Amino acid sequence: MRTRAAVALAPGQPLEVMDVNLEGPRKGEVLVEIKATGICHTDEFTRSGDDPEGIFPAILGHEGAGVVVEVGEGVTSLEVGDHVIPLYTCECRECEYCLNPKTNLCQAIRSTQGQGLLPDGTTRFSMLDGTPIHHYMGCSTFANHTVVPEIALAKVRKDAPFDKICYIGCGVTTGIGAVINTAKVEIGSRAIVFGLGGIGLNVIQGLRMAGASQIVGVDLNDDKEEMARYFGLTDFVNPSRVEGDLVAHLVELTGGGADYTFDATGNVNVMRTALEAAHKGWGESIIIGVAPAGAEISTRPFQLVTGRVWRGTAFGGARGRTDVPKIVDWYMDGKIEIDPMITHTLKLEDINEGFDLMHRGESIRAVVVY
Amino acid sequence: MRTRAAVALAPGQPLEVMDVNLEGPRKGEVLVEIKATGICHTDEFTRSGDDPEGIFPAILGHEGAGVVVEVGEGVTSLEVGDHVIPLYTCECRECEYCLNPKTNLCQAIRSTQGQGLLPDGTTRFSMLDGTPIHHYMGCSTFANHTVVPEIALAKVRKDAPFDKICYIGCGVTTGIGAVINTAKVEIGSRAIVFGLGGIGLNVIQGLRMAGASQIVGVDLNDDKEEMARYFGLTDFVNPSRVEGDLVAHLVELTGGGADYTFDATGNVNVMRTALEAAHKGWGESIIIGVAPAGAEISTRPFQLVTGRVWRGTAFGGARGRTDVPKIVDWYMDGKIEIDPMITHTLKLEDINEGFDLMHRGESIRAVVVY
Ligand SMILES: [Zn+2]
Ligand SMILES: [Zn+2]
Ligand SMILES: [Zn+2]
Ligand SMILES: [Zn+2]
Repeated sequence: MRTRAAVALAPGQPLEVMDVNLEGPRKGEVLVEIKATGICHTDEFTRSGDDPEGIFPAILGHEGAGVVVEVGEGVTSLEVGDHVIPLYTCECRECEYCLNPKTNLCQAIRSTQGQGLLPDGTTRFSMLDGTPIHHYMGCSTFANHTVVPEIALAKVRKDAPFDKICYIGCGVTTGIGAVINTAKVEIGSRAIVFGLGGIGLNVIQGLRMAGASQIVGVDLNDDKEEMARYFGLTDFVNPSRVEGDLVAHLVELTGGGADYTFDATGNVNVMRTALEAAHKGWGESIIIGVAPAGAEISTRPFQLVTGRVWRGTAFGGARGRTDVPKIVDWYMDGKIEIDPMITHTLKLEDINEGFDLMHRGESIRAVVVY
Repeated sequence: MRTRAAVALAPGQPLEVMDVNLEGPRKGEVLVEIKATGICHTDEFTRSGDDPEGIFPAILGHEGAGVVVEVGEGVTSLEVGDHVIPLYTCECRECEYCLNPKTNLCQAIRSTQGQGLLPDGTTRFSMLDGTPIHHYMGCSTFANHTVVPEIALAKVRKDAPFDKICYIGCGVTTGIGAVINTAKVEIGSRAIVFGLGGIGLNVIQGLRMAGASQIVGVDLNDDKEEMARYFGLTDFVNPSRVEGDLVAHLVELTGGGADYTFDATGNVNVMRTALEAAHKGWGESIIIGVAPAGAEISTRPFQLVTGRVWRGTAFGGARGRTDVPKIVDWYMDGKIEIDPMITHTLKLEDINEGFDLMHRGESIRAVVVY
């Protein structure tokens, strides 16, 4: 079949919207009509050429929601008409990782996914001239139709709006999951969130759900405070206006340091501040942000020996097929909010405008609706 | 009263054994006759002048065992004749830290202890000419008699030999506790221990108690292998004989990385290796060793984002008054061994020889018996 897609032809270039060929689903695969997709910093990281592992040409996009159009041989958990969210962290429920309750990093299709291929080592997308186009993070949601392995699709309820729940495929789950699955924040905890973009806002609403008693947000941009307060922030700190040491200021503000701190900036210096602002004896710091290639975190080991714990999280520690449908329910039940974070809605033809909005810091999340 | 003590008069000098004055116990304090004390790298760190916070003159020593001779006003949990182990990490059972189950770092007398003083801000020791002598780590076990706060004394059974259980006041509890309290190692875990000195051996016997299925030891000294195997080591790795990358070798040897790794070297490069040799998804690395002043650990944040956890431990995460008596019981019941680690027994007059033995790597633990 043919479908419409925004193709990243080469690093650093705008996406090109064009018709592409799409083969039908093979064994264990599912053809999905994407109804909406978010535009994320991770897509931009690859599009820009900054990602050393970026492969081109490729169809980017990893925050989608859509409807099953056709299932391949052996697919048993999904049928035509099901509503689904593609998962860049799959859940096979059979590998060593899926069977270990401490991790969500299913390895079932890891190597081919990293190569921009489906598990059988091939691609379903191609240019009209036959040139193969790579998949991206196993999702490729910047195409109106895509083929995804069954184990990388979360089945969700049919009454949830695609243009909102697509964001659960990445930022919402990452932020809320970091609080609930990775940090396991307890009621009454004090927390600090570094970086009040989309991920940071979702960490904040995760903290509010978890019953945190103090939620401090740290951002260089004062404009972030209002929305962050809407989601549950209790204290805003702009480091540019702190006199003296930021760590000391945050330790003072949180009565000795925070029980949990979250880095949603990807800046390794901020990651260090986040660790050191955690409470002596028991504070845990969780790295969510993705650092530039080669960047390293560092601190004195004394920080750990005196009881701080340094962790990271990927996809919020969530097991997508199990956890994403629950988060969709939370959204539909009003336990979490997504609508205020979807600041812009675009057509596929205008997808590059979505990247511009992100660059200018004008959007929290721009969503393409097909 | 007068007692006999080895005094550190100035940084870098041998200890001088002499008679000193000792005042009796004040409110909340206890006079203890020390029967035996280990000589530890931490004492040497201070004696040598490497410890930037070292205070002189002082009576060092923090691995002691002895008998209560007199109790001060208000002391209720101990009486004359009780056998005790002094604790450099006290347990008041009332402070914010003691009341938080996640930490053992009681802060009740932290600041005065760091200043070489008892909680009322004074010292009980003095030279015969009246010059005050500082306490050390709240213990000062290099004196035949010492005064210690009640909350810094673990009451232990009377049939346990002082010259063995004194080591429970530091290395035994630190190593075993790192496994049991900090890492909470599960049955069947794979583990790697870096550094097979006294702490490393105790980590190993902790791992054996915890039911670890593989216990890999890493040390540059082949002579360490035999004793480590006696305590439960299953695989010995000398990095100087590993071709290629040590992390890759250890990951291969442990089938994907260890569930738990322990640094008992204090070397920040080893700490990084220990973290990176932990299993993707769930491996935890625990820093036990004390690094030189100013040294920093570093790694790529990717190591944490892909599921490794970086922790530290002090006194093995043990609450001394509660946990030390249990460890003494384990020793008396034959669940752990200490005797093979006490390689040398000395008189106080010969204490500097104990430091020499440590320097030459000939002792695991030299113990002074009064
Ligand atoms: Zn994303
Ligand atoms: Zn799996
Ligand atoms: Zn010691
Ligand atoms: Zn306490």
